Amino acid sequence: MTAYARLAARFARIGALGEAAGILHWDASAMMPPGGGAARGEQLATLAGLRHELLVSPEVTLDLAEAAADEPWAQANLALMRAAHRRATALPVALVEAVERANSACEKVWRQAKAQSDFALVRPRLEEVVRLQREVAQALGEALQLAPYDALMEGYQRGVTAADVEPVFEAYEVWLAEALPRAEAIQARRGAPMPLPGPFPVPAQRDLCRAMAQVVGLDFSHARLDESLHPFCGGTPTDVRITTFYDPANVAKALLGVLHETGHALYERGLPEAFARQPVGEAAGMAAHESQSLIVEMQACRSDAFLQFLGTRLQAAFGGEAAPYAAANLAKLWRRVERGFIRVDADEMTYPAHVILRFRLERAMIEGSLAVADLPEAWNAGLARALGITPPDDARGCLQDIHWYDGAFGYFPSYTLGAMAAAQLMAALRRAEPDLDAQLARGEMAPMMRWLGEKVHAQGARLGFQDLLVHATGKKLDPADFTAHLAARYLAG
Amino acid sequence: MTAYARLAARFARIGALGEAAGILHWDASAMMPPGGGAARGEQLATLAGLRHELLVSPEVTLDLAEAAADEPWAQANLALMRAAHRRATALPVALVEAVERANSACEKVWRQAKAQSDFALVRPRLEEVVRLQREVAQALGEALQLAPYDALMEGYQRGVTAADVEPVFEAYEVWLAEALPRAEAIQARRGAPMPLPGPFPVPAQRDLCRAMAQVVGLDFSHARLDESLHPFCGGTPTDVRITTFYDPANVAKALLGVLHETGHALYERGLPEAFARQPVGEAAGMAAHESQSLIVEMQACRSDAFLQFLGTRLQAAFGGEAAPYAAANLAKLWRRVERGFIRVDADEMTYPAHVILRFRLERAMIEGSLAVADLPEAWNAGLARALGITPPDDARGCLQDIHWYDGAFGYFPSYTLGAMAAAQLMAALRRAEPDLDAQLARGEMAPMMRWLGEKVHAQGARLGFQDLLVHATGKKLDPADFTAHLAARYLAG
Repeated sequence: MTAYARLAARFARIGALGEAAGILHWDASAMMPPGGGAARGEQLATLAGLRHELLVSPEVTLDLAEAAADEPWAQANLALMRAAHRRATALPVALVEAVERANSACEKVWRQAKAQSDFALVRPRLEEVVRLQREVAQALGEALQLAPYDALMEGYQRGVTAADVEPVFEAYEVWLAEALPRAEAIQARRGAPMPLPGPFPVPAQRDLCRAMAQVVGLDFSHARLDESLHPFCGGTPTDVRITTFYDPANVAKALLGVLHETGHALYERGLPEAFARQPVGEAAGMAAHESQSLIVEMQACRSDAFLQFLGTRLQAAFGGEAAPYAAANLAKLWRRVERGFIRVDADEMTYPAHVILRFRLERAMIEGSLAVADLPEAWNAGLARALGITPPDDARGCLQDIHWYDGAFGYFPSYTLGAMAAAQLMAALRRAEPDLDAQLARGEMAPMMRWLGEKVHAQGARLGFQDLLVHATGKKLDPADFTAHLAARYLAG
Repeated sequence: MTAYARLAARFARIGALGEAAGILHWDASAMMPPGGGAARGEQLATLAGLRHELLVSPEVTLDLAEAAADEPWAQANLALMRAAHRRATALPVALVEAVERANSACEKVWRQAKAQSDFALVRPRLEEVVRLQREVAQALGEALQLAPYDALMEGYQRGVTAADVEPVFEAYEVWLAEALPRAEAIQARRGAPMPLPGPFPVPAQRDLCRAMAQVVGLDFSHARLDESLHPFCGGTPTDVRITTFYDPANVAKALLGVLHETGHALYERGLPEAFARQPVGEAAGMAAHESQSLIVEMQACRSDAFLQFLGTRLQAAFGGEAAPYAAANLAKLWRRVERGFIRVDADEMTYPAHVILRFRLERAMIEGSLAVADLPEAWNAGLARALGITPPDDARGCLQDIHWYDGAFGYFPSYTLGAMAAAQLMAALRRAEPDLDAQLARGEMAPMMRWLGEKVHAQGARLGFQDLLVHATGKKLDPADFTAHLAARYLAG
């Protein structure tokens, strides 16, 4: 057995434990009775601990020193093994444990603090989380030869640094300051949408969501659709589990949410099976993943063409007059620009402003130039600058997202990188499939998904974010495709 | 940290991996889309492999040599750790792997062989399974200083040997030969039962089954009830998962099945939490487990008293005239003695005959006195001797149960030991709760479950099967309580 074969066998075990944890996480959100929580915590902690032990074992160090691979996929796999090992060994065990304890304690208090809109309640906990994340960033940065914040970003999306992101974000802010008022004016001229008639009984919503996930390409012999408080895509590539939450008063929430999660799910389904449970067989990172959910939800399914198809399916499911289901009306309903406080409710034009705010603030906290105590004020000032509005309370301000309170720093940029990549991929896809709109209007997603399958899904983690975009579109991240998409959708007319 | 504390920490990890596997097994039967099967196999094999590695590690040998425990629970825990380690180290890895491959291959072919009633198809696979089980039994027997077949039995129910079981089974055969014709004659005199009116819509069955599980004492904040092809009880003590299968033409199947699984579930729920994920915190074995399902299903819920209560609940759920729901009619329907071919369909009087047949045959195969090639003939002859009937084909004969074809030898006696223990526990419970029938007639299960909780569930695996019975009833297994129960139910009148 070669050193590489030994490593592949070990990473297959690590991958299998990761898959087991994936199903157990899904179960905890979608199936588990509340009384199972404590034991589930033990199970997941044990799986995480064993994965870590398998990764940092001295045998891995020896095998990595000796291993060689002679074809490109194996070479990429080996490089990813080295990177995973470097990350895992960069942190002393005591720090990893302290981080887990602090994150877990902070997250619990955050739930209460958010419910009561009381930042002071969680502030000491968040200070501890940030203190430890700064230590983590420092240690990882040294091991990976990256700036501390970049080392955290790298954990979510390989090959993208703050220096890559900063000019892109700055340019977007400039563009948005000019575009947003124009989009609002155009929207106001177009008049208010007709509401969909409703009611939207949950069983009918469930059937429609399932049918639309199948339209996009999800095969339920390898997938499930269930319910959870917060929608997500989990499970494993051959057994992918998406969830949603049905609101009987509003069909858009579940429907568009399921289309989004289906984009994630099809990425997982399309990962290279030959490298299942190997690092190179995984998705290329969080921004790449978000590009796949957003190209389905935002680019394809909210297009004029697809809304025609969707309107007929909606009317068939819920009845009533045809007028509210017309594509133009659905576009008014579901492509509405609005300056709001809440990121997860934001439209695609203002969403990046929410992300850019968080990117600046978290980077400043990690670099030490923003104290946690000053976070609420900095947040409110930042939102006022970006969108001209000020949150009425911290629950709708710096307490709204779980990320920081659970120790996730460096994640936020992925959302906007993903949105930009989705637009860039869509532009390339349109060049490859000139007939795309006619297909979408008929609900034919197969050609689009085939293209994404080949250009993105089947590439696994062989390429980093930028290289993946070069492979699929011929160029690195180019935010011009995103602003062109927004201009076509919101500034024409 | 003492050697015992190190061992406890290690067994907690082994236990947590076992819990993870328990949920993944449940998911595979109740939730998983078919396409997830191959990956699930990898996940479960990895978990099993890691549990084994954690158990056979050289550090365990050193710690077991050094460890001491000073209070009875810890002493029992340590003894169980030693036993688990002895079993795990008794078998060479190559043998364990060969067994897993052979079992898995045989089980697959068995499905086809059973469907086609073609024993010859699976015979070579079963020969390989038996050959390897004989090796396993030999090696385990040497390590545990037990006869080979006893060493296999010990894996399912600690502290019971073939020599304990043989005279009990022989006496039962003698009793049955005389009692069965009498029971049949009495049953014939009583006349046929009225069928329940039906139909039994699945949603109403689901609600009733859930309500009845709650009546018995299942708390759904720590449990789920779902559907699977073969009903079972899985999950973990704080998150127990029972399943059933609804037949719209027959409510008894799901209802009595759920009561049975609820008995298993409450045993898991009542295990000592202070020893969660430790060997002594587990159930006392398969016979003990079966005693808990059968005391609920057969002893309590099929009693005249409880059938009164159940009849009113059934009528409320499905409507129609009162007469078929009368306890006396339900008793005729659900306490019907019948000489049949299929073990899982057998009544409580003839069930042991099916078990005794299998016990004799599997013991002979392990001891080498019965060749696999001669199994169908030996089966048919044995059933003819026991019940006077001959299976029309092997699908209804030696191909009916999965156990042997999946490598489970030594398991079958547990069913009848459990049935006998259930009767013995019920007799003791009646002495402790003279008011029991009045409680059952009102659907009050709490006093009964409290008694079982204290006498059985809370004992975990501290005591072996015989010692547990002594603790709960004042005597070792005494089959007279079982035959007295059967006589009262089937021979009076």
